[in-house]
Amino acid sequence: MAKLTKRKEDYSKWYNELVINADLAENSGVRGSMVIKPYGYAIWEKIQQELDRKFKDTGHQNAYFPLFVPKSLFEAEEKNAEGFAKECAVVTHYRLEADPDNKGKLRVDPKAKLEEELVVRPTSEAIIWNTYKNWIQSYRDLPILVNQWANVVRWEMRTRLFLRTAEFLWQEGHTAHATKNEAIEEAELMLNVYADFAENFMKIPVVRGLKTESERFAGAEETYCIEAMMQDGKALQAGTSHFLGQNFAKAFDVKYATANGDLEYVWATSWGVSTRLMGALIMTHSDDQGLVLPSTLAPIQVVIVPVYFNDEQRNLVAQKAHQLKSELMSKGISVKFDDRDTFKPGWKFNEYELKGVPVRIAMGPRDLEKNQIEVARRDTGDKNFISLEKSVEHILSLLQEIDENIYQKAKDNKQELTTKVDTWDDFQNVIENKGGFVSAHWDGTTETEEKIQELTKATIRCIPLEAEKEEGKCIFTGKPSQQRVLFAKAY
Amino acid sequence: MAKLTKRKEDYSKWYNELVINADLAENSGVRGSMVIKPYGYAIWEKIQQELDRKFKDTGHQNAYFPLFVPKSLFEAEEKNAEGFAKECAVVTHYRLEADPDNKGKLRVDPKAKLEEELVVRPTSEAIIWNTYKNWIQSYRDLPILVNQWANVVRWEMRTRLFLRTAEFLWQEGHTAHATKNEAIEEAELMLNVYADFAENFMKIPVVRGLKTESERFAGAEETYCIEAMMQDGKALQAGTSHFLGQNFAKAFDVKYATANGDLEYVWATSWGVSTRLMGALIMTHSDDQGLVLPSTLAPIQVVIVPVYFNDEQRNLVAQKAHQLKSELMSKGISVKFDDRDTFKPGWKFNEYELKGVPVRIAMGPRDLEKNQIEVARRDTGDKNFISLEKSVEHILSLLQEIDENIYQKAKDNKQELTTKVDTWDDFQNVIENKGGFVSAHWDGTTETEEKIQELTKATIRCIPLEAEKEEGKCIFTGKPSQQRVLFAKAY
Repeated sequence: MAKLTKRKEDYSKWYNELVINADLAENSGVRGSMVIKPYGYAIWEKIQQELDRKFKDTGHQNAYFPLFVPKSLFEAEEKNAEGFAKECAVVTHYRLEADPDNKGKLRVDPKAKLEEELVVRPTSEAIIWNTYKNWIQSYRDLPILVNQWANVVRWEMRTRLFLRTAEFLWQEGHTAHATKNEAIEEAELMLNVYADFAENFMKIPVVRGLKTESERFAGAEETYCIEAMMQDGKALQAGTSHFLGQNFAKAFDVKYATANGDLEYVWATSWGVSTRLMGALIMTHSDDQGLVLPSTLAPIQVVIVPVYFNDEQRNLVAQKAHQLKSELMSKGISVKFDDRDTFKPGWKFNEYELKGVPVRIAMGPRDLEKNQIEVARRDTGDKNFISLEKSVEHILSLLQEIDENIYQKAKDNKQELTTKVDTWDDFQNVIENKGGFVSAHWDGTTETEEKIQELTKATIRCIPLEAEKEEGKCIFTGKPSQQRVLFAKAY
Repeated sequence: MAKLTKRKEDYSKWYNELVINADLAENSGVRGSMVIKPYGYAIWEKIQQELDRKFKDTGHQNAYFPLFVPKSLFEAEEKNAEGFAKECAVVTHYRLEADPDNKGKLRVDPKAKLEEELVVRPTSEAIIWNTYKNWIQSYRDLPILVNQWANVVRWEMRTRLFLRTAEFLWQEGHTAHATKNEAIEEAELMLNVYADFAENFMKIPVVRGLKTESERFAGAEETYCIEAMMQDGKALQAGTSHFLGQNFAKAFDVKYATANGDLEYVWATSWGVSTRLMGALIMTHSDDQGLVLPSTLAPIQVVIVPVYFNDEQRNLVAQKAHQLKSELMSKGISVKFDDRDTFKPGWKFNEYELKGVPVRIAMGPRDLEKNQIEVARRDTGDKNFISLEKSVEHILSLLQEIDENIYQKAKDNKQELTTKVDTWDDFQNVIENKGGFVSAHWDGTTETEEKIQELTKATIRCIPLEAEKEEGKCIFTGKPSQQRVLFAKAY
């Protein structure tokens, strides 16, 4: 196994090598589409399971809506259509036939042209609101709290594994409400579900905020987001929750009868996170040796590597290893006993380091004689000899310690990479040389936002929800401002 | 709520009404694509969870491969391509633009034509074997045991909710092996996993068999299947497992180095079940009042409907109901306490009957005075008064009894609808008037199979694996035959 490029040398190269070498994902034979490999998918499954539990705990149900959106439905909500039209995969035919000019090859059958083109969903508001129209008659039918796990396609020109792919996996919640307030509460609730999930489950600290008008979801009145800070000083949008107002209800004519019998348009939200979270996970915790995972997301939490020089030793170690494994498993820990004899222990150590297994146990005859095992933690690399009888207890608390440590490290990094600036010179300097979040005053106009982006490549990641109001002057125009916003270069 | 059409009057109409009225699925604004509604999806999730557990127990891992298959990959395995070319949705463009002739409308951007068309996967052998090519070098890389949960598209002209839809959800296992025997063992193992799942979890009795050559999966050497018998005497293919030989390895040039250093083509299997299983579930167990579900698949296993005439009674009943609910939930039972006051108890009884909730409890003040509740089972309609203190125990065993009863009923129906015949007259008569499986001798030729289908619409559902060898004469040609096969009209 070749060593990874160091992060300091080339962060982007390090990322790509890590994703591929740790068996998370790879590019496929289809432009911009990735293959999510079993090890990567096992992590995604853990993300899904926990989110799904949280969605259900907050009263949502799953459903499934069509992959294809007829063009006439797609274009119904104008802003949404405009926002996604440039990156749509479009189905125009429904049959292939033998190519008369090319033996053994197929071609599109010109007789099988669709009357109306079908857009492969880049997001499902249109198809879902066309469905909700039939589900909603009166206030008794509200709220509708539905989520969908699905694939979506956005034709990206520059793609990167997990971060930006033409096809990606996500969940999209789509809710319908009787009142504006209820819809806003829902959008905020789901933002908090995402933030809680990112921080407490993925151990990724985030800033909760609002997007500026120019960064809003196409068709939304307000976009809430969680923004995370990667090790290299670039921000990553990790989840969004949109208050859609009555835009889709009006586009699809979805009204409900109130208790008084009046007809009102329905209020909407949508919210989503995607396989992009895998990129956030990698770039928050990993190091030059490979992936670092919290125990919550590790497909293998503990690996036991046996060390032996003859069959007798091998049997002895295997017996103790199986015993420890079953004790740990009875506590809900996932354990792999890697007794392959086709690889040396040292090779295995590197392999599990690369794959981010939180705890590695080396078990050899000499240690067993002393009734001890060697326990190594992935996050710090520390190794300790632990007596066999205390090992289960030790490992349980070690896993927790690891989770706390990597979260603390990520929080420290985010703090270290957040800088308050009050002048344009400082702003440019920090963005250029240090990176990270730059907390600065802004005059609130799209014009200024665009100019700053043009000059520095930094965008407003969000208007933080938690920040205090503070009088100040826009770092670019000097005009008055009421609150600092967070700028950064971003993935 | 209008009553359902009776099964005897119009089975097909009954089916459609049931699927829609029980909130399982509905047609969408996209030709041939359905919306799976939350109640239907909750059942599908239970199917997924149990199958996923079984796949993992047998050593498989999940992964995810691209939705789109470039035409050149799609056509690589000729038989497979030929089999699916006629029903492929094809992406030809990657952008929409404002339509200059139609204000506010969009049109396909002619400048954004793809160099190579992309087929929306009807099945994933091609894209996956193009990937496996890079995963497999030596015998150490084998076997690969991977499954994918995904959506697929087959452009069907006549669609029916769950049974035949342009887009459907499924899982597809794709495995790679060093030897022919190992691949055949895998195909048979997964057939048995499906059969076990259908019978013991879904309570649907099935016949395990082999498809004849003309009914085989396009690109397979052998197709194993499980066939179920619906109430109306039509068969339904509930799952298939294919031994693919080296066809895909040859098409994609996938070879491995043996332990001796020789290069050999890899052996393959694939196997899948889909949302079609929902159709099988409905048509195996349900009745004129609505859905009938085994407890294993019921999103709500027990519903408690309160009966009261004043607030004091309401509070008393609610207290007892919550107590019973939490006791049942602590035993792992999913319970709904439906205390909505917008609907009358009678309305609720019908609603839960329609939705197939296995056990319904009516709880009223007069019964509570006698320390009892009314327990009704959905499968037989029987009602009993049960003392409160014995209710948890009673309900636990009742759920099991219901599962056994509906399985027994389905087995009886399948047996009743399986007929041995030895003459062509009897064959035609049974197929025409009674339906069901007809067990008959067949001369083994595709020609005869096709003629029989032409004359009677019956196809050979399978050559049963469990049947004994028996000398006989083909019912159509009189030629010698070694084994009976199962004919039926089918969904």
